[in-house]
Amino acid sequence: MPTSRNSQPDVGGVPAPPTCSFASDNTAGASPEVLAALAAADGPAALAYGADRWTAAVTDAFAERCGQPVDVLLCWGGTGANVVGVAAGLESWEAVLCADTAHLVTDEGGAPARMTGALVLTEPNVDGKLVPEAIEARAAWLGNEHHPQVGVVSISQATELGTVYTPDEIAALADGAHRHGMRLHVDGARLANAVAAHDSDLRAMVVDTGVDIVTWGATKNGGIYGEAVLVLDPSIAGRARFLRKQLGQLPSKMRYIAAQVLALLDDDRWITQAAHANAMAARLADAVAGIDGVEVVRPPEANAVFARLPVDRIDALQDWSFFWDWDRSDGLVRWMTHAATTPDDVDRFAAGVAAIVGR
Amino acid sequence: MPTSRNSQPDVGGVPAPPTCSFASDNTAGASPEVLAALAAADGPAALAYGADRWTAAVTDAFAERCGQPVDVLLCWGGTGANVVGVAAGLESWEAVLCADTAHLVTDEGGAPARMTGALVLTEPNVDGKLVPEAIEARAAWLGNEHHPQVGVVSISQATELGTVYTPDEIAALADGAHRHGMRLHVDGARLANAVAAHDSDLRAMVVDTGVDIVTWGATKNGGIYGEAVLVLDPSIAGRARFLRKQLGQLPSKMRYIAAQVLALLDDDRWITQAAHANAMAARLADAVAGIDGVEVVRPPEANAVFARLPVDRIDALQDWSFFWDWDRSDGLVRWMTHAATTPDDVDRFAAGVAAIVGR
Amino acid sequence: MPTSRNSQPDVGGVPAPPTCSFASDNTAGASPEVLAALAAADGPAALAYGADRWTAAVTDAFAERCGQPVDVLLCWGGTGANVVGVAAGLESWEAVLCADTAHLVTDEGGAPARMTGALVLTEPNVDGKLVPEAIEARAAWLGNEHHPQVGVVSISQATELGTVYTPDEIAALADGAHRHGMRLHVDGARLANAVAAHDSDLRAMVVDTGVDIVTWGATKNGGIYGEAVLVLDPSIAGRARFLRKQLGQLPSKMRYIAAQVLALLDDDRWITQAAHANAMAARLADAVAGIDGVEVVRPPEANAVFARLPVDRIDALQDWSFFWDWDRSDGLVRWMTHAATTPDDVDRFAAGVAAIVGR
Amino acid sequence: MPTSRNSQPDVGGVPAPPTCSFASDNTAGASPEVLAALAAADGPAALAYGADRWTAAVTDAFAERCGQPVDVLLCWGGTGANVVGVAAGLESWEAVLCADTAHLVTDEGGAPARMTGALVLTEPNVDGKLVPEAIEARAAWLGNEHHPQVGVVSISQATELGTVYTPDEIAALADGAHRHGMRLHVDGARLANAVAAHDSDLRAMVVDTGVDIVTWGATKNGGIYGEAVLVLDPSIAGRARFLRKQLGQLPSKMRYIAAQVLALLDDDRWITQAAHANAMAARLADAVAGIDGVEVVRPPEANAVFARLPVDRIDALQDWSFFWDWDRSDGLVRWMTHAATTPDDVDRFAAGVAAIVGR
Repeated sequence: MPTSRNSQPDVGGVPAPPTCSFASDNTAGASPEVLAALAAADGPAALAYGADRWTAAVTDAFAERCGQPVDVLLCWGGTGANVVGVAAGLESWEAVLCADTAHLVTDEGGAPARMTGALVLTEPNVDGKLVPEAIEARAAWLGNEHHPQVGVVSISQATELGTVYTPDEIAALADGAHRHGMRLHVDGARLANAVAAHDSDLRAMVVDTGVDIVTWGATKNGGIYGEAVLVLDPSIAGRARFLRKQLGQLPSKMRYIAAQVLALLDDDRWITQAAHANAMAARLADAVAGIDGVEVVRPPEANAVFARLPVDRIDALQDWSFFWDWDRSDGLVRWMTHAATTPDDVDRFAAGVAAIVGR
Repeated sequence: MPTSRNSQPDVGGVPAPPTCSFASDNTAGASPEVLAALAAADGPAALAYGADRWTAAVTDAFAERCGQPVDVLLCWGGTGANVVGVAAGLESWEAVLCADTAHLVTDEGGAPARMTGALVLTEPNVDGKLVPEAIEARAAWLGNEHHPQVGVVSISQATELGTVYTPDEIAALADGAHRHGMRLHVDGARLANAVAAHDSDLRAMVVDTGVDIVTWGATKNGGIYGEAVLVLDPSIAGRARFLRKQLGQLPSKMRYIAAQVLALLDDDRWITQAAHANAMAARLADAVAGIDGVEVVRPPEANAVFARLPVDRIDALQDWSFFWDWDRSDGLVRWMTHAATTPDDVDRFAAGVAAIVGR
Repeated sequence: MPTSRNSQPDVGGVPAPPTCSFASDNTAGASPEVLAALAAADGPAALAYGADRWTAAVTDAFAERCGQPVDVLLCWGGTGANVVGVAAGLESWEAVLCADTAHLVTDEGGAPARMTGALVLTEPNVDGKLVPEAIEARAAWLGNEHHPQVGVVSISQATELGTVYTPDEIAALADGAHRHGMRLHVDGARLANAVAAHDSDLRAMVVDTGVDIVTWGATKNGGIYGEAVLVLDPSIAGRARFLRKQLGQLPSKMRYIAAQVLALLDDDRWITQAAHANAMAARLADAVAGIDGVEVVRPPEANAVFARLPVDRIDALQDWSFFWDWDRSDGLVRWMTHAATTPDDVDRFAAGVAAIVGR
Repeated sequence: MPTSRNSQPDVGGVPAPPTCSFASDNTAGASPEVLAALAAADGPAALAYGADRWTAAVTDAFAERCGQPVDVLLCWGGTGANVVGVAAGLESWEAVLCADTAHLVTDEGGAPARMTGALVLTEPNVDGKLVPEAIEARAAWLGNEHHPQVGVVSISQATELGTVYTPDEIAALADGAHRHGMRLHVDGARLANAVAAHDSDLRAMVVDTGVDIVTWGATKNGGIYGEAVLVLDPSIAGRARFLRKQLGQLPSKMRYIAAQVLALLDDDRWITQAAHANAMAARLADAVAGIDGVEVVRPPEANAVFARLPVDRIDALQDWSFFWDWDRSDGLVRWMTHAATTPDDVDRFAAGVAAIVGR
C-alpha cells in the first residue's frame, strides 16, 4: 500500500511533496479541538451506550440546529451509519433506490443488501446526482408484488463526483419520494462541504427541504471516528435505535464520539472547516488548470478535484504524493482536500503536478 | 438513565460513593497509555482502512504472541467484531451454536441473525459455559438438510456469568467442534481477564487450544474503542476482510485504533490491567462476603462479582452508586471491576454496601 | 433411503406390511377429491399468481369460516408458508419466540433466520407446548435495544410431540403476546388434526382465541402441495403478499393449489379427514399398548403415536415397514397416521410390531 | 384483475377471442402427458423430500442428457429456484451481476437480496442480454473490499425481451466469468424455447458452453408447478440441497413434481413443445406484421412477440383478449405463446388485432 513520502527532499526540480495527502479526506488527522474534546471526555466513570451527558448534549445541539426534535444516533462509521439510516426508513419488504455512482452501491462492499436484505436498485446518475425522473420510473412498480417496492431513496450530498445538490434539487427529490410514500435519505459523509458550498446551514439543507433521514459525517471533516444518523421523520422515531444496535453500530463508550461531535458543532466548526476544504479544492483547481496536460474535468463544487492527466504520468505523480485513480484507462484521477489542507500543501502539490506532468 | 453521583458527600453514615463505577467495565475511561497512544497517532496524513504503519505493527504483534501468522481485523465494537468473527467461520447456509447465556444471543439485539442470516441455536449453560455434550447434540443433525447445520460454535471467555474456561475445557470444545467440521469462535470481550485468571498468555489460551477465531476485546480493558478479530484458521484467512467491510466494521482512520491496541499489547499491559481488575473483584467479594444480607453467589473468577441482596435494598444502593440488576426478582446483582478500579473504590463501595444493605 | 416394501409376502409369522406408511403424514398420496379438483382446474387459460376464480373462491371460503375478512395467501410448502406467516408479523428489527421443539427452529434448516434475518429465540417446551411464562420472560427485554425484541410468538398446533393446545391455552398465549405488543402465529401444518381433536372449527380455534396469523396446512392432510397463510390481524393485511413474493412463495399457476384447498374446505373435508387420521392413531395406540416391550409414551391427542421400543428391535421393524426414529438412544420412535390410513393398515402394522418386537 | 373472456361471441366484426391467452406462458394449463404423469404418481405411500423413485429417475435423466453427473434439485417455483441456483454459486460475502432487464432484479420482488443478502449489481442490457464487457467492468473490483465482489453472473435464456443467446455467446460469458473466478448461472424459465430456437439440446446449450448452474423451467412449458436447479460445477455439488431447504424450496411430496419433469424430458417433449410455442410466435408475428398501426419491434426468436400499437387501442384489445403492457407510454405490448397455443388461437388473435387496431 502506498503512503505519502512527506520527508522527501526536492529532487531534480521536483518539490518536496506536501505534508497533507490529497488521496482522501480520511487521510487527515483530527482537528485540534476534536482531539482535545475527546481527551477531555476521558474520566473515571460514565455509563456506556449514550447514557452520558455528552450524548445528551449532542441531541440537544442537533435539535436546536434543526429547529425541531430529532432522533440522533451516534454510530461508528460511514458505511454502518448509512445502513442504519437507510434501514430506519424501510419496511421489512422494501427496496432502496440510488444513483449508480452512490457510495451505497459501489463502495460499501454490499453492506446495504447484506445487513438489511433490501434490494438496491440504481438509476443512471446525472453529474453524480439522482434525478426526480428516476423516482418516477420505479414508482410505477409500487403495489405490484412482482416488482421491488422502493421504500427509501438515498442520495449523497456532496456526491461521489464532487458535485452538490442545491436545496431546491433536494426538495424536489423529497417531494417526489413523499408523493409515492417513499422516504429520502441523505448520505452526508460530506454534508458539511455541501452546506458550506451553498453558504447554507443544517436546517435549510435537510429540514426545510423535507429530508427524512441524514447520515451526518464527522470522520472526513476533522473527526477521529464516529458519524451521526439524524432521523427527522417523527413517524419512524424510536425504531432506529434498535436497528443501530442490531447492525453493530451502537458505540460502547459513546461519550468519546459525542465529545467530538460537540466540538465540530460548536461555533459551526463543521461548516467553517468544510468551507476551508472547499476553498482549498478551488485553489488547487485554479493552480493546476493552466498546466499543460492537465484537464480539470469540472469546476470543484465541494472538496474534490477531478482531473484528467496523461496516463503515462500518473504513476510518477502518485509515487511522489499518493492519490487514487478514478478511472485509470481514461487518465481520470481524484484529489481531495480537507480541514487540515493548507494553502502551502496546495501550492506544493500543484508545483509537483507541474513538474511531473507539465511539459 | 441513572448515573453515578460521584461528588455526593457522606450522609448519615453512608460514605461517599466510589469514583469509579461498578456498573460495567465499559463505564471506565481509557488507560493513560491508551489515550496517549491515540493522541500520538494523530498527524497530518496516513492512508485510511489499515494501510498505515500502526496497523501493520498490530498484525506483527499478534503474530508474534500467537507464534503463527494470524489474520488480524481491527473492528469498531464488540457486537460487530463478534459478528465478523462468527461470519468468517460460517458457510453461507450454516448455523451458530452457543450457550443460552451467550452475549451473542441475549445482548446483541439479534445482530448475529440479522447480519449473517444464520440461525443461532442455544444449549443450556453450565455455570455460564457451553459443554462438549452440547456440540454432540447438534452434530447429530449434520448432513440432514431439514436440520440447521452448525458451522460455528461460539463461547465467551470469560463468560457472561463471570466464570472462566480452563485451557483444557477450551481444547475439549475445539476438539469436539473440529471432529464435526465446525469451527470454534471465542467472544473475548473479556479474554484478558480470563488469561490473567489462569496466569496464561494469548498463545496458550487460544492457539494451543485450537481456537479458530477470536474476538479480542480492548474496550472493556482500558481502550477507548476498537476490538480485534483474530483469524487463526489459515483455511479461512482472507475472507474475513470482505465480511468486515460488508458488515460495517471497517474503521476509516484505523491508525487510531491500532495505536490503542499496540499500547495494550505493549509490556502485556492488556494482561496486567486485567489481572488488576480481577484482583479488585476478589477484594470486593472478600469485603462484602461478611456483610449481613449479602450473598456472593460464586467466588469471582474474573472481574465480575455476582451477589444476592435483599430485594428491598437494591434501589437505595443503586441510587448511591449505580450498577445493573442481573435478576431483580431474585435479588441478583452484578458488580464489575476494571483497569481503573482502585482499592479505595472497592473499599468505599463495600462500605456503602455495608451501610445500606447490612443490618 | 428406506422405502416401505409393500409387496412383501408374509414371512415366518411376520405379516405383510401395511399399504400405507406410518413414517409421516406426507408419505400419503392425495385424497381422491383433491386430485380430481386439481385435474378439473386444468384448462386452456387462467391468469397466473392468483388472478383466477379458484383463488377468489378460496378467500371467500376462509372468510366465511372465520366470520371476518381474512388475507389469504396460498403458498408452496410448509417451511415457506411458516416463514411468510412469521415475516408478516415482524417489524424489520424484531425477533421470534417459539418452543425449543418447534419445527421453525429444528426442522426448517434455519430458514426463518436466513429468509427474514430475525433471531429465533427458544424457551423450553412443556409437552411440546410453549407456555405463557415463556412470553413473560422475553417480554422483560422489550424496549431495551441490547436485547432481542420479540415481535412474533409462534406455536405449532398440533405440536411436534403430537400434543394439542386447547382453545383456552391458545387464547392465553394470544393474550400474553398482545399484552406486550407481540403477534401470535400458529404453525398449523396439522391444524386440522388439532381442530378435529377438540371437535372444534377454524373460527373457534384461531379466530375466537385471538390468533393473528395462521399457516393452514393442506399437504399433510390429503393435499398434493400447497399451504395457506391466513392473516387475521387487519393491521398487517396487505403487507404479506409482498413478503410472499419476496420469499419465493408465490405460486405461478395458482389455480391448481386453490382447487385443492377448495376440495379440502368443501364439506369440512379437511376436518373429517383429520378426525379419521386421529382415530387411526388412537386405534394404533390401543393395538400396540399391550404388546410386550412397547410403551406408548403418551395417549395420542392427534395423529402421532410416540412409542418406546427395545433399541435392538427398531432396525428390524423399520426394515419391515419404514418409520423415523425420534430418539434412537432412548428407543423412542414416532408413527404417523393420515387421511388414507385404513383400519387394516393399522391392524397389520400392529401385528408386525407384535411379531417383531413382542416376545 | 382481467381475465380472458373466452365464451364471448363475435360482435360487430370482431371475432371471438382465442381459447388460449396470449398474456403469458403461465396462463396455460398442463400438457396432457404432464397431468397424466402427476396423476399416475399418486398412490398410498412414498417417502417425502425426494426419497422416491421418480426423483431418482429425474436425476438419472438429467445426467444422461448432460453427459456428466449433475446435482438436480427440484424446487417449487421460478423465483425460488433462481434464488437457490444463485445462492449455490455464492460465497457468503459475494454479489450477483445481471442485466438491468433480468427477471432476478425486476420481477422477483427483491427476493435474491432478501433471501441471500447478496447485492444485485446490474449492467445495461444489449437486446436483453448481458455482454462480456459487463463482467470485465465489475471484475476490476475483485480483491478490493470496498467494492462488491461478484461471485455469480446470472443471465436469462431466453431473455426477458424474447431474445436468445447463441451457444457461443453463452460460452463467451462463461469464459469471462471463470477467468475471474465467478460462476455463471442461467435463469432458464424459458430454456426450452432457447434450445428449440437453436435446434440444440441441453448438453450443447449449457454443459458444453461451461455454465455452472441452471434453473430449468417446467411451469411455463406445460408443467403444473415445479422447476429444477441443475448444479453442473462439481466443486459446489452438495451444498445446494441445504440452501434449497433453507430457502423454502424443498417440496414435500416431491414425486408429483418429479413425475411431471419426467413427462417433459421423455421423448424431448420439453423441446418439441417449446419449438411449437416458438413457431406460434413466429406465426403471430407474421400475421400481425401487415396490420396497419402494428409494428413488430423485432422478429421473435423464442415465444414472445413484442409489438408497438397505437396507445389508444390497447385497452380495447386487452378487453377483448387480455395481455400485459410492456411500456404503455410507448405503446409497447408483449404477447406470449406456449405449448397449448394453436394455429387457430393465433389466427383468431391476429384477426382481433386487425379488427380492433387496424384501420
